[in-house]
Amino acid sequence: MAALEEYALGREIVGRISALAAISEDKDHLTRVFLSPEHRAAAELILNWMREAGMSAHLDAIGNVCGRYEGISPGLPCLMLGSHYDTVRDAGKWDGPLGVITAIACVADLNRRGKRLPFAIEVTGFADEEGVRFASTLLGSRTVAGTFDESVLDGRDGNGIAMREAMQKFGLDPDHIGAAARTRRELLAYLELHIEQGPVLEAQNLPVGVVTAIAGATRMAARLTGMAGHAGTVPMALRRDALTGAAEAICAIEEFCRTEEGGLVGTVGRIHAMPGATNVIPGQVSFTVDIRAPDDTHRKRAVADIVREIETIAKRRNLALQLDVTHENRTVPCAPRLKAQIAEAISAEGFSVFELPSGAGHDGMAMIDIADVGMIFVRCRGGISHHPDEHVELADADAGARVLLRVIENFRNRK
Amino acid sequence: MAALEEYALGREIVGRISALAAISEDKDHLTRVFLSPEHRAAAELILNWMREAGMSAHLDAIGNVCGRYEGISPGLPCLMLGSHYDTVRDAGKWDGPLGVITAIACVADLNRRGKRLPFAIEVTGFADEEGVRFASTLLGSRTVAGTFDESVLDGRDGNGIAMREAMQKFGLDPDHIGAAARTRRELLAYLELHIEQGPVLEAQNLPVGVVTAIAGATRMAARLTGMAGHAGTVPMALRRDALTGAAEAICAIEEFCRTEEGGLVGTVGRIHAMPGATNVIPGQVSFTVDIRAPDDTHRKRAVADIVREIETIAKRRNLALQLDVTHENRTVPCAPRLKAQIAEAISAEGFSVFELPSGAGHDGMAMIDIADVGMIFVRCRGGISHHPDEHVELADADAGARVLLRVIENFRNRK
Repeated sequence: MAALEEYALGREIVGRISALAAISEDKDHLTRVFLSPEHRAAAELILNWMREAGMSAHLDAIGNVCGRYEGISPGLPCLMLGSHYDTVRDAGKWDGPLGVITAIACVADLNRRGKRLPFAIEVTGFADEEGVRFASTLLGSRTVAGTFDESVLDGRDGNGIAMREAMQKFGLDPDHIGAAARTRRELLAYLELHIEQGPVLEAQNLPVGVVTAIAGATRMAARLTGMAGHAGTVPMALRRDALTGAAEAICAIEEFCRTEEGGLVGTVGRIHAMPGATNVIPGQVSFTVDIRAPDDTHRKRAVADIVREIETIAKRRNLALQLDVTHENRTVPCAPRLKAQIAEAISAEGFSVFELPSGAGHDGMAMIDIADVGMIFVRCRGGISHHPDEHVELADADAGARVLLRVIENFRNRK
Repeated sequence: MAALEEYALGREIVGRISALAAISEDKDHLTRVFLSPEHRAAAELILNWMREAGMSAHLDAIGNVCGRYEGISPGLPCLMLGSHYDTVRDAGKWDGPLGVITAIACVADLNRRGKRLPFAIEVTGFADEEGVRFASTLLGSRTVAGTFDESVLDGRDGNGIAMREAMQKFGLDPDHIGAAARTRRELLAYLELHIEQGPVLEAQNLPVGVVTAIAGATRMAARLTGMAGHAGTVPMALRRDALTGAAEAICAIEEFCRTEEGGLVGTVGRIHAMPGATNVIPGQVSFTVDIRAPDDTHRKRAVADIVREIETIAKRRNLALQLDVTHENRTVPCAPRLKAQIAEAISAEGFSVFELPSGAGHDGMAMIDIADVGMIFVRCRGGISHHPDEHVELADADAGARVLLRVIENFRNRK
């Protein structure tokens, strides 16, 4: 690799992160959702960067930005690099765009050096990963993987606009979504660089890490029903308090996950106690349970154990329990050959190799259907994400780019 | 006492309970708030019943209905019987009105028999005990006790109407509130009959009980602040989850109150977790704590112990804790001489004497400032109150009336 001005890649990336973050529906809060005018403006900016980097570039049928840098001969299968460029509401600047911008920076570096590889490189910026507008995630990568669910076209956003109408207004034809699907033959692998969105690399004092798997998740909705009553008149022994039952369940979930090995995490994020008055014993409490693990067998066993614990608590307290699984994602393991190549690159850049699972979902969850998946995590400050305080240090952005560039240049397509 | 047709008192009471419950701002849900047209209509109905029972009757300066049945000579100090005739929203029919209607039924019975006692009897129906409209309770009894807080006059209801205006519109003069205050010289005692609003008498299989005290209460607002984070990306060991902290605190409050003797109860009735998304670790949780005991020393010690436990939990979990006392009521003990006379009457009616504290607040909390307070509880079905399902059996309404009548006829004014 040619000697670089210190953090040259990082500086370009940080500048572009800011340029892209300026495209928001709200001046003071970064929000960029699917099929919005900001989606359009961001796409145009990214397509320009792709072309400047020596790629042919176009918008596909779902609004993904697609750039292609040919290999030593035209039409070769590609190594696909990607991430997404939509955001949550009041987002940080790095979640998604860092992967797209870093990939373009790597191609630009190859292009400046006139370097062609024995495979093509494609960079895909997915139009919708967060699922903010139509409450259905991974729309961009599912389109590329050929698993787009056409029923989502009839889903409506908060203003009652169907996705189909929104696509037409944007200038996209919903009937052409199928044409944007790619095949396994065209892809050598799918690689994504993304911020960690957690505090583990920071705690390890490392700028980058090798992702082992995108953890599977089970989400449940629980409802405990007891008997509401006056806070002053019902003795403790005669109560059927749904909130103390829920509290015991929440403590049990935490305790179970704390004492398990292997990256199991459990979270109760929402709770609602009814009737919700200071002087009334709650008669009914609803809460959510989110369980994730980098191994499906482990997760399923943990979910079964946790359900059993909640059932036991409800029974002992004479509370009625309704418990429904509302969502389930299988674990997407990263390919050993890609983990090994990422680890080599990290080591060659002088950093310790550290492996960690991704607890958050990523486009690789869709791309696994047509390609092996590899992921590089970049440290983010305090583990904060989905928040304006989301931050990546210049040195870390640069380190991530150097690792990705090294993986690309040394990419070996052995299975 | 003259022989009565079976449940004659109870039949009259049950009929009048239904007649009064028909006066509601909403046909399908019983709601009758202070200074409303329904307040006016209910007052007129009750004043009529009082006059039919041989009492002189008038509306006082705050809208209480006041009936007086003279003793063997005019102008004697009175035994005051009372309760309230306002309701919560979507109320039951019995909470408040039972005491007013039963007292009138007792006077009517004396009047039918031409019986005069060596003291006057007054029946007061308090216009506002629940405090639904102006978020300040006991307005009727505080006026009678001379402790009405004039600053409440500037308080506004949900429609922005100040209490002062509402009084004027109703035809009452806010400047005359002071004139409605009574003095200790005028009252021999204050006696209230009320539904239990709890399940204890039902569990004891008894229609009536002797109240030992109106339990004092401490209400607190607690806020735990940790760090919000992604439900998938933050390992259990690195979390500062405000909701698991709150859950541990809720379990500790319950456990503390369960294992204490002496009628201590603790309730967390409201909880709010932020940001409140399924896949986000709650960074901040607010909840209320309501602690009651029939003994102030016991309650204060329990509150101190519970606060210390919550502090310990917060500290161990590295959560910031804000804990404020939002409300505090001292315990109102019932006078031993009145408890004894109520117990005698219950026994004479053939029921076992059972003593219990009142966990709910009552007008006696205000009346204690000018009179000794005694209370009779009547069993209500399932302990349900502040709910349309609130119910008292005919036999129990009758039993309550017979006990109250016996207390009145045998009342001895020794201290």
